Amino acid sequence: MRLEAAAAAIVAAGRRLDALGLVPATAGNFSIRLDAHRLAVTVSGRHKGFLTMDDVMVVDLDGRAEDPRQRSSAETLLHCGIYRRFPEAGAVLHGHSIANTVLSRAAGRALSLAGYELLKAFPGLPTHDASVTLPVVPNDQDIARMQRGLDTLWQDMADIPPGYLIGGHGSYVWAPDMPTALMRMEALEFMLACELEERRQGR
Amino acid sequence: MRLEAAAAAIVAAGRRLDALGLVPATAGNFSIRLDAHRLAVTVSGRHKGFLTMDDVMVVDLDGRAEDPRQRSSAETLLHCGIYRRFPEAGAVLHGHSIANTVLSRAAGRALSLAGYELLKAFPGLPTHDASVTLPVVPNDQDIARMQRGLDTLWQDMADIPPGYLIGGHGSYVWAPDMPTALMRMEALEFMLACELEERRQGR
Amino acid sequence: MRLEAAAAAIVAAGRRLDALGLVPATAGNFSIRLDAHRLAVTVSGRHKGFLTMDDVMVVDLDGRAEDPRQRSSAETLLHCGIYRRFPEAGAVLHGHSIANTVLSRAAGRALSLAGYELLKAFPGLPTHDASVTLPVVPNDQDIARMQRGLDTLWQDMADIPPGYLIGGHGSYVWAPDMPTALMRMEALEFMLACELEERRQGR
Amino acid sequence: MRLEAAAAAIVAAGRRLDALGLVPATAGNFSIRLDAHRLAVTVSGRHKGFLTMDDVMVVDLDGRAEDPRQRSSAETLLHCGIYRRFPEAGAVLHGHSIANTVLSRAAGRALSLAGYELLKAFPGLPTHDASVTLPVVPNDQDIARMQRGLDTLWQDMADIPPGYLIGGHGSYVWAPDMPTALMRMEALEFMLACELEERRQGR
Repeated sequence: MRLEAAAAAIVAAGRRLDALGLVPATAGNFSIRLDAHRLAVTVSGRHKGFLTMDDVMVVDLDGRAEDPRQRSSAETLLHCGIYRRFPEAGAVLHGHSIANTVLSRAAGRALSLAGYELLKAFPGLPTHDASVTLPVVPNDQDIARMQRGLDTLWQDMADIPPGYLIGGHGSYVWAPDMPTALMRMEALEFMLACELEERRQGR
Repeated sequence: MRLEAAAAAIVAAGRRLDALGLVPATAGNFSIRLDAHRLAVTVSGRHKGFLTMDDVMVVDLDGRAEDPRQRSSAETLLHCGIYRRFPEAGAVLHGHSIANTVLSRAAGRALSLAGYELLKAFPGLPTHDASVTLPVVPNDQDIARMQRGLDTLWQDMADIPPGYLIGGHGSYVWAPDMPTALMRMEALEFMLACELEERRQGR
Repeated sequence: MRLEAAAAAIVAAGRRLDALGLVPATAGNFSIRLDAHRLAVTVSGRHKGFLTMDDVMVVDLDGRAEDPRQRSSAETLLHCGIYRRFPEAGAVLHGHSIANTVLSRAAGRALSLAGYELLKAFPGLPTHDASVTLPVVPNDQDIARMQRGLDTLWQDMADIPPGYLIGGHGSYVWAPDMPTALMRMEALEFMLACELEERRQGR
Repeated sequence: MRLEAAAAAIVAAGRRLDALGLVPATAGNFSIRLDAHRLAVTVSGRHKGFLTMDDVMVVDLDGRAEDPRQRSSAETLLHCGIYRRFPEAGAVLHGHSIANTVLSRAAGRALSLAGYELLKAFPGLPTHDASVTLPVVPNDQDIARMQRGLDTLWQDMADIPPGYLIGGHGSYVWAPDMPTALMRMEALEFMLACELEERRQGR
């Protein structure tokens, strides 16, 4: 994908996620794979609901900026870790919600979602009569170390769902393209909000 | 109704239901009866908040596409089941909300709503001093089988309300026309949100 | 006030209250006093978030339509009851919220709000260090009888706040003009949402 | 900063905070430091979501209006107290939310936030692995007295966070400029909403 098209898709994704309340303050970061070696990713520190085309930059799969004057999101290495590990990943979204923050703070190492029609938004699940178990990793300001932990975790998993939670921090999802990533994010956050509601009621 | 007018009404309904948070990801599907034998219905897999006129197609009352290159929503047969059974049905809406998902997962075979002013949105209820009992059917990826279950259920009911819930999946409502169906959906979801709130408080 | 200006203010009020989620389905009705004998009020059965100027009509203080072909909201007599009793009332708003529905269903005959900064939105309260006690009247499809009950209730009250709740049905507020009525409605609904939240936590 | 630019930023901040539900009725007030002796602040009594440039006025650091015909927000002295005490403060925001109202009513003299990624929005916190303790001061219609209480409180604090809560009344945050203040407000309110949710679940 050309950078201009990727930047436009990233700007539009930010507006949508802001409307859904998923990118408060400077929270969230988004990327799109441009080719075998590069991705377009949001720059650091902007409000993701009000991005412009200039707030999207290019890094390689190790997170090095093509233009060294620019600084990408602190969590760029998590995006790189997804593109390196999953060839089918074409777009990555990270957002913060009350549900993903509260549930990930209370969860142990994983969170299971079962019996929701919207589980169909995840690949390889032909029916709702299944479950998805998302890893929950502890938050860490050393992003490279967090990514190494994810790499180790993924090595031992048979079926890796296209998403995970970071404790008290937020959710990551990916998909072949940005529209699918957005729908997967909406599906995940909807199910997390339902889970939160069920826990309110002591179930 | 002509297809163009029906498609425009369906596109507008999707925008409204998205603004109300009722069509996350690819959730939801909508239809309008065109004549004695055909309905306009949403195609499969689109986000219902961002439909275009081309995302609406024609099927017959058995769910067969007029243009075989198009694929309608997986739940088209539930729309057909409503139009076949209820001659007064002119528009059908299906949406997902946190309230209808959580309540339908916890409910048995029915959910009763009583004492709400907005019950007046349902037909044949001259006063709020009444109740509506909505069937709750188990979710099933075999839509034809789910519809046969509904047909059997309706046969044994004296008063059939224009709506039902599917466990962990969402709500269906219908009405003579799309504006009335939208108002009925808003009324239903408002009452379900009140029910959920009352259950939070242990009542 | 001239009818055109009143209708424009009523249309705008409906858009605002819809954005705040206070007029689901056909819920809600609004009015503005035109002169000593007449008021402008919403017609029956419309969605209040999508009103046009033609959806506002004129009735006298007994609720009789100036143009007999038009039918005003079923609750017009509650508006008339407010204008007859309170000379300072210039605009009346009625809306439904989850908070006002759930709290009014659980309340007895009154609901007290205390210790909120936004109590300043009510007249005669120079400080937050006060309380407002709103009457809660039982819902009744005989609107004239409900109004007679309110008249009796008001007769025995020393300080009458510019608002009340109807059980399971919604809230009424009034003020000298529409902008003040809208702010009072927002203040009331904000405090009710806080009350609901405190009750969730068992306080 | 010139008054026109400050007024435009204040008008835009009001629209954003209204979209986030933080300025119900006439709640909230905002200011920007113009120079060493003056600030631009909202006039009293307006709805902050619908401000115009004319709803912003100039006062000195003691809260005296430059144009004596204008009356600034009742809480102007709290803005002045922040600008006098913190040279780095360039913009101040005050808003009301259900979370800040309910939590400040239940809190004692302080509220601690710990383990949230969004704590990074506060200065001097390089990691999420920290906590912020916000003062909670009792509400008081004597604003000068409330400010004296804050001055005394701040004198005894080693690290003063750029924000505080007023019991049953709302939150204040400040930052070098308005965009940063808005992001800090969003981060604070997001964390308060998470706290409220955790308390709902009895944690």
